[in-house]
Amino acid sequence: MIEQPYLLFLGDAPDALAAKVAQGIRDWRPDAAIGQLRLPGCNADMGLPEMGVAEAAAAGAKTLVIGVANRGGVISPAWKTVLMEALDAGLDLAAGLHNLLRDEADLAGRAADLGRNLHDVRLPVGRFPIATGEKRPGKRLLPMGTDCSCGKMYTALAIEREMLARGMKASFRATGQTGILITGSGIPLDAVVADFMAGAVEQLSPAADEDHWDLIEGQGSLYHPSFSGVTMALVHGGQPDAMVLCHEPTREHMRGLPGRPLPSLEALRETAEHVARMVNPQARCIGVSVNTARMGEAEALDYLAATEKRLGLPTVDPFRQGAGRLVEALP
Amino acid sequence: MIEQPYLLFLGDAPDALAAKVAQGIRDWRPDAAIGQLRLPGCNADMGLPEMGVAEAAAAGAKTLVIGVANRGGVISPAWKTVLMEALDAGLDLAAGLHNLLRDEADLAGRAADLGRNLHDVRLPVGRFPIATGEKRPGKRLLPMGTDCSCGKMYTALAIEREMLARGMKASFRATGQTGILITGSGIPLDAVVADFMAGAVEQLSPAADEDHWDLIEGQGSLYHPSFSGVTMALVHGGQPDAMVLCHEPTREHMRGLPGRPLPSLEALRETAEHVARMVNPQARCIGVSVNTARMGEAEALDYLAATEKRLGLPTVDPFRQGAGRLVEALP
Repeated sequence: MIEQPYLLFLGDAPDALAAKVAQGIRDWRPDAAIGQLRLPGCNADMGLPEMGVAEAAAAGAKTLVIGVANRGGVISPAWKTVLMEALDAGLDLAAGLHNLLRDEADLAGRAADLGRNLHDVRLPVGRFPIATGEKRPGKRLLPMGTDCSCGKMYTALAIEREMLARGMKASFRATGQTGILITGSGIPLDAVVADFMAGAVEQLSPAADEDHWDLIEGQGSLYHPSFSGVTMALVHGGQPDAMVLCHEPTREHMRGLPGRPLPSLEALRETAEHVARMVNPQARCIGVSVNTARMGEAEALDYLAATEKRLGLPTVDPFRQGAGRLVEALP
Repeated sequence: MIEQPYLLFLGDAPDALAAKVAQGIRDWRPDAAIGQLRLPGCNADMGLPEMGVAEAAAAGAKTLVIGVANRGGVISPAWKTVLMEALDAGLDLAAGLHNLLRDEADLAGRAADLGRNLHDVRLPVGRFPIATGEKRPGKRLLPMGTDCSCGKMYTALAIEREMLARGMKASFRATGQTGILITGSGIPLDAVVADFMAGAVEQLSPAADEDHWDLIEGQGSLYHPSFSGVTMALVHGGQPDAMVLCHEPTREHMRGLPGRPLPSLEALRETAEHVARMVNPQARCIGVSVNTARMGEAEALDYLAATEKRLGLPTVDPFRQGAGRLVEALP
């Protein structure tokens, strides 16, 4: 659990895209961040009050979150200065960088001396059981992608927001580093040891009230050969009652695999329901979430309408239209 | 790569079953072991010459393999004495124990001093890539189980033996600790980090001659919720051309999951072909391997005949009947 509120560190982000973790926090947990810290040359802006670390600590910040990707896999001297200051000012640090905070001797030493936490959210924390496959109370939804990185996290967060706005019981459950930084907790499933993947998902989404929904962040795709095992563990550990098919229509091949076409939504629907019903006979796809960011408004609406007609399922882009129709389709 | 030949350490095995790793080596790589070392009270016997470590080293042994499970998760003083002597005599050590050789300070220290290797085959060695999903030359066969521990390793080894006897090009590829100890190399897939599972399988089964078959050891089951993600990665990383369905007909529920029935062979066939064809459109199930160890001869033969008729696939127990008909069914 990463302590909130956050000070968002935007560093020297060359553009807004480099700060997508910070943007995710800003979009989905606006109350979690009380300020932003930018270095000279930073071209990202979350519209938060500018703060130094001392000021942020005085304002109640508990953790400096690195909300920006670093360049070249190194933590620069300019970053290091800020991070050491943050530890000195009483803040924990949290990051999802490839190079770990704990591997930086000066940060690790200072944190140990001062009793601060370094949260490297790329690494799982704790131990996980072998999955039991037993049915547990509560409802679960899992977005299933035709590919990696096609909007599964966004879809789950949008559904959570919509459900909470309607007074329903709902919890987003993060399975990747960005989701963990956004919500402050979760398990980076891709870094869990194979035998314990499904057990980690069972732990992440425990027994709950019968009318409570876990919105579990999806990973990979059953059709993506690099990561399909992770997705399978997510389905069998998550035992979803409902699935939402997620798709990015302009993609020409599966992510990172030139020449490999995406599956059709129909094929994914059939496969997802087949494997999910091995553990939950009630499992079904209840809607489609399309990421139409690369389409114009008219083209997007045409695509959504045509897809809805083809599949016979509510089909929305939650960014353009909200997730209301998906929530209404829940069993 | 574990250096051969081996001295098989049988310890104080209470019965033959406790020494199943040693038995596997004896059955499948009879030339790999030149002797056995038994402690007082040992009730297992591989029929190999009895040797002390000095004698084994003089006879050319390179590695002492712990071929027996230990009791209570500790390495006893009696074992420790032998293991230290083996290091002194010039042997490496190899084991698949839950508690690792490298975690024993005296063994680790002595091995480091003497330049010996400690092979803990429960842990993967080296780094693995993200899978590319690209087709590579050579043919691959993967046994697919209705459950865990139903004869997949045995089936792959039996097919390898039969193919080699017929002068065909074949390599068993170990994905579990017993298989690794038997053959001296492989990757313990269940201990690989999730993101790299399929890439590890691609590395384990690299490009080969077009008429060469890799017989890849199976793991788990697509229907076993605790481990289905591992199985999925094996299918998508292994890209099998041929699959053999493996089944143990007397099992009342899936291993470790009371109340959960096994899938039918028909269901497994359909699911296995469906997911394998995502990466290899030629993939198909070519036969059935049934573990009939718990059935009488007549009952077993009846079951095999009925299954063959039902599925329309060559159906054998390779232990009773050899794997010839499976080899003849290869594409």
